[in-house]
Amino acid sequence: MRIVELPEIVATLDEAAAIAAIEDGFRRLHRGEVQLAEVGHLNFADPPGDCHVKGGHIAGDTVFVFKFATSFYRNPARGLSSSNGFMIVVSAETGEQLAMLRDEGLLTDTRTAIAGAIAARAILRPGSTTLGVVGTGIQAKMQGEMIARLLGLDEILVHGRSAGRAAALAAELGGEAVSPAELCARADLIVTTTPSTTPVLTEAMVRPGTRIVAVGADTPGKQELETALTAKARLIVDSAVQCAHHGEAGWPVRAGLVAAESLVELGALLENPVAFAETDIVVADLTGVAVQDIAIAKTVWERLSG
Amino acid sequence: MRIVELPEIVATLDEAAAIAAIEDGFRRLHRGEVQLAEVGHLNFADPPGDCHVKGGHIAGDTVFVFKFATSFYRNPARGLSSSNGFMIVVSAETGEQLAMLRDEGLLTDTRTAIAGAIAARAILRPGSTTLGVVGTGIQAKMQGEMIARLLGLDEILVHGRSAGRAAALAAELGGEAVSPAELCARADLIVTTTPSTTPVLTEAMVRPGTRIVAVGADTPGKQELETALTAKARLIVDSAVQCAHHGEAGWPVRAGLVAAESLVELGALLENPVAFAETDIVVADLTGVAVQDIAIAKTVWERLSG
Repeated sequence: MRIVELPEIVATLDEAAAIAAIEDGFRRLHRGEVQLAEVGHLNFADPPGDCHVKGGHIAGDTVFVFKFATSFYRNPARGLSSSNGFMIVVSAETGEQLAMLRDEGLLTDTRTAIAGAIAARAILRPGSTTLGVVGTGIQAKMQGEMIARLLGLDEILVHGRSAGRAAALAAELGGEAVSPAELCARADLIVTTTPSTTPVLTEAMVRPGTRIVAVGADTPGKQELETALTAKARLIVDSAVQCAHHGEAGWPVRAGLVAAESLVELGALLENPVAFAETDIVVADLTGVAVQDIAIAKTVWERLSG
Repeated sequence: MRIVELPEIVATLDEAAAIAAIEDGFRRLHRGEVQLAEVGHLNFADPPGDCHVKGGHIAGDTVFVFKFATSFYRNPARGLSSSNGFMIVVSAETGEQLAMLRDEGLLTDTRTAIAGAIAARAILRPGSTTLGVVGTGIQAKMQGEMIARLLGLDEILVHGRSAGRAAALAAELGGEAVSPAELCARADLIVTTTPSTTPVLTEAMVRPGTRIVAVGADTPGKQELETALTAKARLIVDSAVQCAHHGEAGWPVRAGLVAAESLVELGALLENPVAFAETDIVVADLTGVAVQDIAIAKTVWERLSG
């Protein structure tokens, strides 16, 4: 087994190949061509932390992938990253472990940002020019940079709870820090990336025709968008089951305002594009699915071994 | 993360420590002190193979363990082992991966044999002298050697479908190769280790008072003991859920001959020893549980890091 450390992964990762592989992964998932393993999960109380093991295989691929990831929330106080983990690439012909990718979270961060860009492209209103970024963390930075570049949005607005961090990220992205109200008033596309448990954007703030990529809500209890907003939006989800359970789309579904059957999976939207109305508010709710991990690890391995 | 290869694992593994840890693991499992992750599983059709990921944490331990294992059945035709895998030892305080144990199956084989020895000791009839071994594979060899040595059984009988392999194993264990009928007529304790799907030992062959450790049946369809035999035996199981589903005990349970509630878990037996009657036939049905993997990997890591 080849042990691949972060610098080699950085040098090998090809963004265009990863985007193509992840988009293909969403399509294959929709077509029922992805075998996913049950997610293994452990919870720790003291110190608080958790562990997730996810994996799967895309039909016809010569490799399959498992991802092992931990989050221990008191690590930063000890000078350690809260996240740890790796992906392993395994031969689907012999079961031999081919590579361990010690990516220090880079591949997860990248595949998350790429899914945001894929979803943004699928729901973007023609003629859009302005991107709003809510949040100031790693996903705010990665999604803000990647979506603006790939979709050609040349104006970037940033809002964060910390004015200083918002200003810093705005400077880094070549944009400006604004209030949530101003961000909503000016942005054509908004990406929300916070771990908030109370809505940051309300129905009253968001204009008709706004497109939103929501990536913050990934566990029960998190919510960035007011339920009245998601209730009236067209809802695109990376996984109907996950999003109804703990994504942004889960709030209106559990409140009985939206039928779970009306959620449209991203893979379905990619396979069968929808012409949204100019005035439609469209929300893409992304909770993260294992096919993204499989796809990005596969592209790294293909280049390493090719 | 430390990568530990097989020779270092062999040099580090301490049998007594592993036995104590695994016995403690069974007791802790019974007391509800073991958190087990959902088992992740993938199946492959062409070439045929499968992948299992199991893991868990024993309350209070400073580490937790995941095991990754694949079996690809056509590998031997390509000159490869059918089994591949590793265990990882992870800090339960920070989530950091401490060690990857590339054991090539040794730890799984050893923890399986140790569970057999623990079960054998728990059900042995006082005054026993003769061990019968059914099968000629790695578990026949490891269990035969370990049980005879640890329990002081000085006569060993071996039966295998292949007379040559049975004779070879008998020579290696210092015993003799015999027919199934003779093995049953003379053995006090029998360990069955075959992947058979039709019973090898029947009710008519097995004498009152015989104690049997059955380790072969670990997936649906396998059966080494006639249902009429297990139906009248006292049944000890490593996991009531697993054994009722795909262990030796599952056959009489699914036939309605034995109540699932009457199965006694090995951990319960260790915590609350039972004085079996002289004439009781007792079967310990072992399908393998993740706490064995956790316990043995933990002991290796403790010695490596101590």
